[in-house]
Amino acid sequence: MSYTNSYAAAVLERCEELAAFSEEAGRLTRRFATPALRQAGEAVRSWMEAAGMTVRRDAIGNVIGRLGDPGRRTLLIGSHLDTVRDAGRYDGMLGVLVAIACLERLRDEERSLPYAVEVLAFADEEGVRFGTGYLASSVVAGCFDAADLERRDGEGVILSDALRAFGGDPDGLLGARRDPTDLIGYYEVHIEQGPVLEGDGAPLGVVTAIAGQTGGQVVFTGEAGHAGTVPMALRRDALGAAAEFVSALEALARDRDGVVATVGTVEVEPGARNVIPGRVVLSLDVRHPLDSVRESVLTRLRERAGAVAGARGVGVEWQLGKGVGAVETSARLTALLAEAVSMSGHPVVRLPSGAGHDAVMLSRIAPIAMLFVRCAGGISHNPAEAVTVEDVAAAIEATTRFLELLG
Amino acid sequence: MSYTNSYAAAVLERCEELAAFSEEAGRLTRRFATPALRQAGEAVRSWMEAAGMTVRRDAIGNVIGRLGDPGRRTLLIGSHLDTVRDAGRYDGMLGVLVAIACLERLRDEERSLPYAVEVLAFADEEGVRFGTGYLASSVVAGCFDAADLERRDGEGVILSDALRAFGGDPDGLLGARRDPTDLIGYYEVHIEQGPVLEGDGAPLGVVTAIAGQTGGQVVFTGEAGHAGTVPMALRRDALGAAAEFVSALEALARDRDGVVATVGTVEVEPGARNVIPGRVVLSLDVRHPLDSVRESVLTRLRERAGAVAGARGVGVEWQLGKGVGAVETSARLTALLAEAVSMSGHPVVRLPSGAGHDAVMLSRIAPIAMLFVRCAGGISHNPAEAVTVEDVAAAIEATTRFLELLG
Repeated sequence: MSYTNSYAAAVLERCEELAAFSEEAGRLTRRFATPALRQAGEAVRSWMEAAGMTVRRDAIGNVIGRLGDPGRRTLLIGSHLDTVRDAGRYDGMLGVLVAIACLERLRDEERSLPYAVEVLAFADEEGVRFGTGYLASSVVAGCFDAADLERRDGEGVILSDALRAFGGDPDGLLGARRDPTDLIGYYEVHIEQGPVLEGDGAPLGVVTAIAGQTGGQVVFTGEAGHAGTVPMALRRDALGAAAEFVSALEALARDRDGVVATVGTVEVEPGARNVIPGRVVLSLDVRHPLDSVRESVLTRLRERAGAVAGARGVGVEWQLGKGVGAVETSARLTALLAEAVSMSGHPVVRLPSGAGHDAVMLSRIAPIAMLFVRCAGGISHNPAEAVTVEDVAAAIEATTRFLELLG
Repeated sequence: MSYTNSYAAAVLERCEELAAFSEEAGRLTRRFATPALRQAGEAVRSWMEAAGMTVRRDAIGNVIGRLGDPGRRTLLIGSHLDTVRDAGRYDGMLGVLVAIACLERLRDEERSLPYAVEVLAFADEEGVRFGTGYLASSVVAGCFDAADLERRDGEGVILSDALRAFGGDPDGLLGARRDPTDLIGYYEVHIEQGPVLEGDGAPLGVVTAIAGQTGGQVVFTGEAGHAGTVPMALRRDALGAAAEFVSALEALARDRDGVVATVGTVEVEPGARNVIPGRVVLSLDVRHPLDSVRESVLTRLRERAGAVAGARGVGVEWQLGKGVGAVETSARLTALLAEAVSMSGHPVVRLPSGAGHDAVMLSRIAPIAMLFVRCAGGISHNPAEAVTVEDVAAAIEATTRFLELLG
């Protein structure tokens, strides 16, 4: 095993150890403010301390380790410890553990950085328990919405109560904002969660932007009827309209470079084999690294939905969320990161992130950079999530060089 | 109110009375072998007796009224008393009550028929409770499947036990088959359950055939993935394939006269806004009055599903039931019925039935004829089911003339 590989192997072992901290036997589910998340945080604290860091927990329950004297300019490195239900072992955790491994390696080599580093292990990015994506990083970025404290989980537990039980402090959230004045930037390592790097045969990817996204629903309302007695020409089949819209959405997204558009759920009413669908609700998810492109795609989709419905005498209702704007990574940090990847002997693949990450929130207070690590089959949010020790070693190598270049 | 209208008004009043016999407060649900069905049967028995009929209950719980001496050739007239959940008031019941009204009218006018008439009020056509469509008429036709006696309802009650509690006799079912030797035919009046008569401005329809039908499922299997991170070109979206298939099915059915093809349910897995569908299960329902046309449509649909899936690298699985063959109505009886409609002053609209009826079973032992009555908006299996007193009067008039012509 090569020198860097031994750090990578340790990272993978720690990913296994963290996977044992779960709310459910036999599979990994670790939501915000649960005992499992507390255990994961304590393990990370111990590894941070072993790496020589000073560790604290902030008001939302993030575990934050610092290396470097107070007052120094500081680079933040982070990712999250919470998971989706029946999760993989790398989404989030890998970024935290690679950061710690790099600092251990520098210490082992008796090298030091001319700036401070803080590693942030965020307590809630997936938002599974309370429907609060980016909860923990929004607190650090100072854009937390206090109304979210009243949210309830599936068992009716209020977020503020869960936070107190977790050892956090609802009243301290505003004060937990990281002062941006001394920040060099925010850096995050994450599995790609997609198949691009695997397709390119590259272990690492330099993220150019984090796509903006709009979610919502499209509702088609036709007329239910007996599947045997209403002739085709007299039908106003809501599913016929919905199917045509799904095909149009697919064609439109394929036609615009970098657009991804997805219908992930379909509800059909009344929903019986022998009844013509009277109402169909489709979910909608549209993303692009440029907000203007996303907006234009949404406009065209809405036009198409109207045209499809109109031609069939079917109603259409368009229910979109506010959407999250795209975030560009820092040109300066990203150039250094690309150089670090290249110096590590790997091709520089630049790609946008279609998934959201804590970096979206941190971009409010600091320039950001992100490194993607190839994952098997592009599979994520799934126990089959996998990375190789060689690719993790590549991430440690590139990150270490990035930290040095930044000096 | 015209003379015939008074019989029609009485029929509609009796439909209201029957609607009160329900398993659920506030809506009409009357399944096989329930106290509500027993009450409806007793009411029908009393009206049959008032019309001068001799009434008995057979082993499956059908209420059968006979007018005419034993040994005479006999016309059967029937329909069903059970309903779907949250049903309308006319699907089934109207046919039974129109038959009784016609016999009352003939008696009031001191006219008699040169043959016997038996009115059958079937105890289970919808098959909601035990999943047994045509249960009651299959007993009369002698094609009851004894294995069905072991079926259980949603509460775990076995059909044979329910039948005993209902006053029926599981051991007597084979013997309850109607001897076909003395039968003139079977005649049924039913609401259309579709919009054709309303579109044609005609109160009555003469049924040419009852469509055969094939039901089943089509399963598309692609690959689930993150809606943000998998580029359109690398997706194997099961819903994309399913949508294309739904559009192809619609086009194919529109292209073949008299074909109806319906996808009434869609299941998407995993089924989340931000996950590309990995598996989609569509229900399938295809009907046509000619079995050869139905078979050819199914073959073409299967080819199209294969082509759609193949072009996308998606798998497709085709799971069809046995299907029910089409049934033609008797040319001789139907010609008389058309003459009767015409003599009543109404246009003769000939149309196939896309829905199944008890007549499908009775066709095994007798020539059949069916008369459709226009219903508002073609709506059925719905509390909004509605017929006008004028249209019911037209059905009584045409049926009375049909009975006379048959003599």
